[in-house]
Amino acid sequence: MIAQKYKKMLQGKSVIRQLSEFANERGREIGYENVFDYSLGNPSVPAPPQFTEVMIDLLKEKSPVELHGYSPSLGISSVREKIAQSLNRRFNMNYKTDHIFMTSGAAGAVAHAVRCVTEPGDEVVTFAPFFPEYHPYIDLTGATLKVIPADTTAFQINFNLFEEALGPKVMAVLINTPNNPSGVVYTAETLKQLADLLRAKEKEYGHDIFLISDEPYREIVYADVIAPYVSSFYDHSISCYSFSKSLSLPGERIGYIAVHPACPDADQIAAMCGQISRGTGHNCPPSIIQLAVAEVLELTADMSVYEANMNLLYNELCSLGFECVKPGGTFYIFPKALESDAAAFCQKALQYDLVLVPADSFGCPGYFRMAYCIETEKVRRSLPALRRFVEENYR
Amino acid sequence: MIAQKYKKMLQGKSVIRQLSEFANERGREIGYENVFDYSLGNPSVPAPPQFTEVMIDLLKEKSPVELHGYSPSLGISSVREKIAQSLNRRFNMNYKTDHIFMTSGAAGAVAHAVRCVTEPGDEVVTFAPFFPEYHPYIDLTGATLKVIPADTTAFQINFNLFEEALGPKVMAVLINTPNNPSGVVYTAETLKQLADLLRAKEKEYGHDIFLISDEPYREIVYADVIAPYVSSFYDHSISCYSFSKSLSLPGERIGYIAVHPACPDADQIAAMCGQISRGTGHNCPPSIIQLAVAEVLELTADMSVYEANMNLLYNELCSLGFECVKPGGTFYIFPKALESDAAAFCQKALQYDLVLVPADSFGCPGYFRMAYCIETEKVRRSLPALRRFVEENYR
Repeated sequence: MIAQKYKKMLQGKSVIRQLSEFANERGREIGYENVFDYSLGNPSVPAPPQFTEVMIDLLKEKSPVELHGYSPSLGISSVREKIAQSLNRRFNMNYKTDHIFMTSGAAGAVAHAVRCVTEPGDEVVTFAPFFPEYHPYIDLTGATLKVIPADTTAFQINFNLFEEALGPKVMAVLINTPNNPSGVVYTAETLKQLADLLRAKEKEYGHDIFLISDEPYREIVYADVIAPYVSSFYDHSISCYSFSKSLSLPGERIGYIAVHPACPDADQIAAMCGQISRGTGHNCPPSIIQLAVAEVLELTADMSVYEANMNLLYNELCSLGFECVKPGGTFYIFPKALESDAAAFCQKALQYDLVLVPADSFGCPGYFRMAYCIETEKVRRSLPALRRFVEENYR
Repeated sequence: MIAQKYKKMLQGKSVIRQLSEFANERGREIGYENVFDYSLGNPSVPAPPQFTEVMIDLLKEKSPVELHGYSPSLGISSVREKIAQSLNRRFNMNYKTDHIFMTSGAAGAVAHAVRCVTEPGDEVVTFAPFFPEYHPYIDLTGATLKVIPADTTAFQINFNLFEEALGPKVMAVLINTPNNPSGVVYTAETLKQLADLLRAKEKEYGHDIFLISDEPYREIVYADVIAPYVSSFYDHSISCYSFSKSLSLPGERIGYIAVHPACPDADQIAAMCGQISRGTGHNCPPSIIQLAVAEVLELTADMSVYEANMNLLYNELCSLGFECVKPGGTFYIFPKALESDAAAFCQKALQYDLVLVPADSFGCPGYFRMAYCIETEKVRRSLPALRRFVEENYR
């Protein structure tokens, strides 16, 4: 019998996906270069050339049997060791090989981390605005996702509402900084306050509360902004990383979990992830991609494009009267819509070939997201359309 | 709190893994070339050179943004289409793109297929001897794996015991032909009888029973043996394929599901798999590997080595008096041990640097598996050790 749970999920189509499909269809009519498609977070700058070179070298020089052979289920040991060493050097941490588990991007990392530290029925807290895929990541583990309404003044954390919601069933808190969709980076002050509160609640409830830090945008941080390393604030932290955005490799599905050495059972969590994988069939990211990223761990694609795009958009949005917190990183910006119904607002924008995403599914109604990982030239061309859209509808 | 379920799983270490670790350790003492390591099913023949060439061409010629960009969650459309066409041409089927879902090898395929067609509490039947990883694949879905004892005369199916076990809670039957560990290929007669019985039981119980066919060894079939295409015998079939063995790419984690077009909800099962993936974080196999295998779909690594190895071993085992069914494919052979306790038998063999795997975990006590995906020269060198082991212990 067909499993009804998954069949039902087919009905709930992602708004982002629908808008992206609209953009592609419209592109076939008028040329995709004329559609101002701000829907998808697909990196637009190429992977660093060193990645391509390393891949070609591996293919030319290593024996195929060795190169394409099974990776150990936790990841290739030398790769895990290099990642631990790089994190230790950059963030003054003390990871060992055994604390690293290779995953299919940040999605795989978060899905594994949540299964490691919750049982069905437990609660996981996250903060709006949040990446809508957190719902399937959490819901299908049997735990429940609890969303704290946004602090719309700065897109940091609304600590009053958080403390109210932080009951004894909360076993994990899931954060994402730099944040999709707000583009905002949590400050050291925010992280310190968060850590203090979690430590107090751990003591009060007599059980651990894990901080799961989803950090695919860790390396996309703009000039003059400081992005603190989350796990350095709180011992019971699991860092979930992806190379998708930093190396512009989203299709190659590669990332990792780094378990803080001070976590309870720190030495076993990566091994537990290996057990979880046996049941989901995820196994391990591909050997060749593991070996290749290990050689370019501290490189990134050219991120300056994203900052240039952000500045263009931020200035224009402000001058058009939008309420908007300036992003500190990522390639997203998150203004308040000019009417309370953001879906209606985004629908009207489509008439100007502007594809904007209403933020209801991000847990922040009344706002919209623009993913500006597109060519700067196109951002520039979109500004008059944006102006016309606002002037013809909201003046 | 650490999830106890996965922590407990850490205690149950795989026998195969332990033996493989022993082999590596012993290799460090006496040189790995002197250890007759028959423990692991890791292909020993290189991927076809065309695969390497295609990979290098993709890296050199395609724009990195396009090459490494997100794959749609069900897989790259052109890749799925090529797979459907190749299956249709080779096996006279009628698959469409929508029936194909790209997975992380056969493990991912089976884990998704089972989740698609069972609910927690349902039963999934398989036949001994069986791949021990079926336990985590099935158990972690919430369904229960029911194992039918082996037909040790021919390693086909013991239909009497099967029919007894085929109650109304059985929603899926999981088969593996050519079989790991027996090396045996199910005959057309076996498959026809299986299909007839399932159709009768579907009618009797008034619900569908899916046949999940795990076929990573489909292309490793010896001269004069015919391996029928399982799904052509039974409409409600889901074929689970992996390129790990046929292209010698086990580390690259690539395979697919092919849903028989006559399955109930056939057009939705691949899409449901996409929903399942959202929850497990498996996502999709890497873009570049998808694109590369699509260019070499009907090639294989040089399989003749495995047949040469099998003939050497089969003849020697028979002449030493082992009971042994001649393999029709794979790179496994599955003789009866010379004492009833196969673990004790394999333990003694270690003194001759022969690493054999007792078959208790394959559901077939008293037998042992040899994975002969090693160099033919090493197989030859192992024969005197095998003879000495038998003569010194069992004569």
